[in-house]
Parts: sequence; structure tokens; C-alpha cells
Amino acid sequence: MDIDELDTPAVIVDLDVMEKNLTRLATYCREHNLNLRPHTKTHKIPALACMQLEHGAIGITVAKVGEAEVMAACGINDILVAYPIVTPEKALRLAALAERTQISISLDSTEAAEVLSKRAREQGVNFSLLVEVDIGFHRCGVSDEKAAVTLAKTIANLKNVHFSGIMFYPGHMLVKPESQSALLRPVNESLDRTLSALDRAGLSARVVSGGSTPTAYRSREFHGVTEVRPGMYLFNDRNMLGAEVARVSDCALSVLVTVVSNAVSGRAIIDGGSKTFSSDRFLSGDGTGFGLIEEDPQTTFEAMSEEHGHLNVSRSERRYRIGERIRIIPNHVCTTVNMHHQVYGVRGNRVEVVWEVAAQGKLQ
Amino acid sequence: MDIDELDTPAVIVDLDVMEKNLTRLATYCREHNLNLRPHTKTHKIPALACMQLEHGAIGITVAKVGEAEVMAACGINDILVAYPIVTPEKALRLAALAERTQISISLDSTEAAEVLSKRAREQGVNFSLLVEVDIGFHRCGVSDEKAAVTLAKTIANLKNVHFSGIMFYPGHMLVKPESQSALLRPVNESLDRTLSALDRAGLSARVVSGGSTPTAYRSREFHGVTEVRPGMYLFNDRNMLGAEVARVSDCALSVLVTVVSNAVSGRAIIDGGSKTFSSDRFLSGDGTGFGLIEEDPQTTFEAMSEEHGHLNVSRSERRYRIGERIRIIPNHVCTTVNMHHQVYGVRGNRVEVVWEVAAQGKLQ
Repeated sequence: MDIDELDTPAVIVDLDVMEKNLTRLATYCREHNLNLRPHTKTHKIPALACMQLEHGAIGITVAKVGEAEVMAACGINDILVAYPIVTPEKALRLAALAERTQISISLDSTEAAEVLSKRAREQGVNFSLLVEVDIGFHRCGVSDEKAAVTLAKTIANLKNVHFSGIMFYPGHMLVKPESQSALLRPVNESLDRTLSALDRAGLSARVVSGGSTPTAYRSREFHGVTEVRPGMYLFNDRNMLGAEVARVSDCALSVLVTVVSNAVSGRAIIDGGSKTFSSDRFLSGDGTGFGLIEEDPQTTFEAMSEEHGHLNVSRSERRYRIGERIRIIPNHVCTTVNMHHQVYGVRGNRVEVVWEVAAQGKLQ
Repeated sequence: MDIDELDTPAVIVDLDVMEKNLTRLATYCREHNLNLRPHTKTHKIPALACMQLEHGAIGITVAKVGEAEVMAACGINDILVAYPIVTPEKALRLAALAERTQISISLDSTEAAEVLSKRAREQGVNFSLLVEVDIGFHRCGVSDEKAAVTLAKTIANLKNVHFSGIMFYPGHMLVKPESQSALLRPVNESLDRTLSALDRAGLSARVVSGGSTPTAYRSREFHGVTEVRPGMYLFNDRNMLGAEVARVSDCALSVLVTVVSNAVSGRAIIDGGSKTFSSDRFLSGDGTGFGLIEEDPQTTFEAMSEEHGHLNVSRSERRYRIGERIRIIPNHVCTTVNMHHQVYGVRGNRVEVVWEVAAQGKLQ
């Protein structure tokens, strides 16, 4: 099948670019002796997770139990749930998975540790637990080394769970490289304090799990890090362009759309809005716009309704004809892919593979 | 089943409130001799569309062909596709539906009219076409009465389609009632000019389809309007509260979430973020926040990651314990429901019905 035969809107992945991205980060991790555990929330597609394992990943990361179930059903046997699991129902489902899959979970509370221990004991399985440490993003994570040691000790004293290390997420480092450098020092000071305190308490962290796509190629600069969990690196997006950690030629994913109206002067309307792209913003840039029109940067994707994308074409010399198709690099690939049930892998103009987004909408 | 037995995140609909909302608008439309054609993009659930028909709706509205297919498969036989259909594939699918369903389509271009006529002729069916008129939102729609007459004439000269009237969408009227009043005059001037010009051309509009939830209870003030297409009125949301067209007691839909972390001072983290609520903004208010925590308005829903909701609890006297559950009224119900595969209808604390969101993610 040819791309021209696809109806729109449709998510297109350039396989050549994606494979280059997969290889490049795998090579970096191998050269720097870092374990790679990609976050599969980005694609939610088991075949892509398998491709990441073939490129040397030691296992995968997920955010939701439902994502873990989809990935485990495809034979993936080493999964980190990088999310605090606090309800007995979810702990039970993970315990069921742990009968055939290595399951690790990050957490920042005694409550989560106790729920997980109880269910693991009932099911006769074991969980590896990572204490999440807040290194500046201020979302989840214990706030200092004392709290980290206290929680690690609690875990060490519970049955059917073991303390295997720490996890951190540098979510505040979605900024340009020079700004990242300034943020790195306090992150490392926090990591140093935490790792030393754990050592002194006789609870050394075997795993130090960190990283993200914006910081992927400086992962080795994080003190003590043993594994990284980037998600977006295989696709990249407009936010990665804004942070200057990817170039347009590194962007593997775009959304193919059709112009459906040009009746309003200065505007072209495309058949994708917030239900196609998500409303996620251009956080690494000036906050405006919902995607990059690579072939015509004079045109801006300035607003969205649910099913309409509003292009401002007033500064463009191009005339947007009804029925013509364009490709747009979205602000945020993770939320864009989650709006779709299929993703099309293309090489040149040929559609080589159609993937079901098997974990789409897995919220529990 | 009791609400307490549902895992989170989960979309909850209070059936008593929803039924009151359904009855109230149906009564208004009956009293003012307006046809009600609800936009089912809001819920994407055939059982709710049927309930709207039982409350007196004459048919339904959809945005996507895939939504029309889902609704037609459940026996709904009068569907307006309020979206310009310009690709041959989609026109063909609509022609297939038109064999057993009354299909109307709005459009603003000759290209769309020709594609639809061609496919209708091939399939031996007929489409009713509505000319979309831009009355100030500047998204789709012909810009003046001359263009409206030209397009109506084009339609009248094409085979297997007939011109049945005009459509407009007052998307710029998501504002408080006093501001709506100021916007109504230019809208009506535009409607007057368009309807008169069509009359003079011998192409009188049998259908004048307008309206939206923010303007639902002033629908009769739009000149010439014969039918209205509100979507959100059965649920309402934070944007309707901000526009002062609904009260909290009119909000039927909320998202049930669990507190999963309180390790960071001043914050509570819930298990729903942009993949649960969508990132749609508080457009009718100050633009900040992603939902209303009815039981504790001192706490703000200030930020989101994909699976984390960041509550600022620093001004609240309440302590957010890990594992406790709260309900949040989302900014925008249409995009929130589309993130979920199930919606739970509750009466008091009892879950009375579970609906599949059958048209979830139908993008084509």
C-alpha cells in the first residue's frame, strides 16, 4: 500500500528515521555502560517494544498496570512500572503478572510498599521496589536522603518485596542544553547525598534509574546512574526540537492530514484537532502552536477544535487546496499516539507495516 | 456494584443530573418549536444517543464518518455529519450508510459538493446538504451571502444531492451571557442577509441548523433557526461553569481519581493526567487549571503530566491521604470522555450502568 491510499488523519512513522534513532541511543548506552529500559508509554505498541529489546534494551518501562499487561502478554518479561501503585486491585494484577514476568515498581510512600508486599505475599511472588527521589521536578519522590533511607528500610523489613535501588525523573530538564547544564549540578548533589546515605545505612542502591529523552545523550553525567528510561527518543517531536535535543531530520513521526476547508480568509482547516493531536502545548518553546508544518514553516498551526486544526496561512505563499494532504510534527508524540488506534510504518512512500496501538487508552 | 468498587481513574455520570439536563433542554426546544439534534461527539455512546431521541431529538449530529457508522449500526436513522467531507473514501462510506439512514452533510466548498454528488450517484443514494456559513467564529463556513447563494446553486445543479438549508456554529460565544448578547447582533445580521439572499435566489433554506451548549437556552434568539446541535448540555463541565451557563449542580460528569503520592510538600498527585482528562484548557475562565475539585475548591488542579495530576493543596486545610479518592469536574467533557473506553452511570453510590464509549478514537 502507498501512503496516498491512507485515509486521514493517520499517524505515520518513517521507519528509516526511527531505526536510526533506536540504533543511536542503543550505541550511546552500550558505550557508556548504561542499561536502557525505554518507556513504552510513548508508543504503546508491543512490536516496537520488542524492537527496542532487539536493539539491546534490558527491559521496558510502563506507567500503567494495563500497559504492563499488554506488554507481558506479548512475552516481554522484565517490566518496570514507573508509577506509584497504591490500590489493592492494581497490586493484585501486578502480582498475577509477576508469576511469569520480572516486575519492578517505583514508589515514594509506606502505603504503596505495604499494599504491594501484602498482595505479593498472597500471590507467592516477589516485587523489586525502587524508591523514587525528587531531584527537582517536584511531582513524586521523597524529598531528601533521610526519607529515602527510611522508606528503603521499611521496604527491607516487608515480606515479598526487596529494595533494589532508586528512581528519579528529571522532568524539569525539558530545556535547551545550556540550561540543562545549570540544572544538572543540584540534581547530582541530591543523587550524591541519597546514594551515600543509603550506603551508610547498608542499603546500597543496585539500580539507579533515571533519564528521559531530553537528557538522553547526557545520561552518563548523572551521578551513579545505572539505567535510563527515555520514551520519545525513537520518534522525537516538536518539544524535542524546541529543546534543541533533536533536529527535524530526527523526527520519525508525523500526522498526515487533509485540508477540508479554505473558505475563511487567511485560514486552512485540516481534519485533525485536539482529538487527533492532543492539546499538549509547546512547552520547550514559546507555548504557541500545536505542531510544525515542515514543508511550510511560514504557516502556523495556531488553534484547534476537537476535529478541526486551524492553520494560519496568511504569511505563506502557498495556496492550500481542499483535499490536499500535509504532514505535521506534533508537539508531543506520547499523547498524540494515544489518540490513535493504528500507526503506519512507512519507508519512502510505501506503507510497510500497520501497528495496532494495543495499550491505547489503558488508564488503569 | 458500588462506586467504591471501581478502580480509578474512571468517568462517572450522575444519572439523576443527566436526566434532568436531558429533560430541561428537550422541554425548552419543544416550547420554542425548535428541532433538537444533539451532537454525539460529546459522549460517543449509542445508548445515550437513543436516550436523547427518546427525549424528543429528531436525529443526531456527528463530526466523523466513523461516529456515524457506530451510531447507524445501533439503528439511529437520521444523522447530520457536521463536518466537511472532502475525500472520496469518506464520501463512499457515507453513501453506503445512506442506503438505510438519512444522511445530511454540511460543507463550504464546491469540491466537497462534487465529491459527495459523485459517490451518491455511484451508490444510487441521496444526500441532504447544508451550506455552512461563518457567522463570526472564523473556522469553516462561507464568508458572505453571495458565496452562500453560489454554493447553494452549485448543489442544486448537482445530481443525487439537494440543498436543504444552512448550518452555523457560534463557537465564539463560549462567554458569559452578557457578552453573548453583544455577539448576537452581528450573528443575526449575517443570518438575515444569508436567508434573504437565498430566498431571493429561489433557494430557501428549509433547515437552519445552529446552536451549541453555551447558547442552548437562547437558541430561539438566533434569527430563523429551526434546529440546534448542542453536545455538552447533558453533562456540562468546568468551561460551562466559567461561561455561567451551568451551575455545579448541573454537572453530571466527573472523573474519579485516587491520590497516589503526597511526598512533595504542598502537592497531592492523583492518578489522572493529560491521558485521562485531555489537556484542554479553561477557555471560559482564566485559562488556568485542569478541573474543579468540587469538595475542596481551595485545592487547585494546577498541572498535569500524562498520567499524573498535580494538585496544589497548599491553601487547603484538608490533608490528602494516599489511597483516598476524589471527584473532579473536567474542563471539557467532550475530550475527556474520548480518553476513556468506559463510562459509569451512577445513581447515588450505586453503579447502575456501564457504557462502552463505542465511537472512542474514531478519527476517520
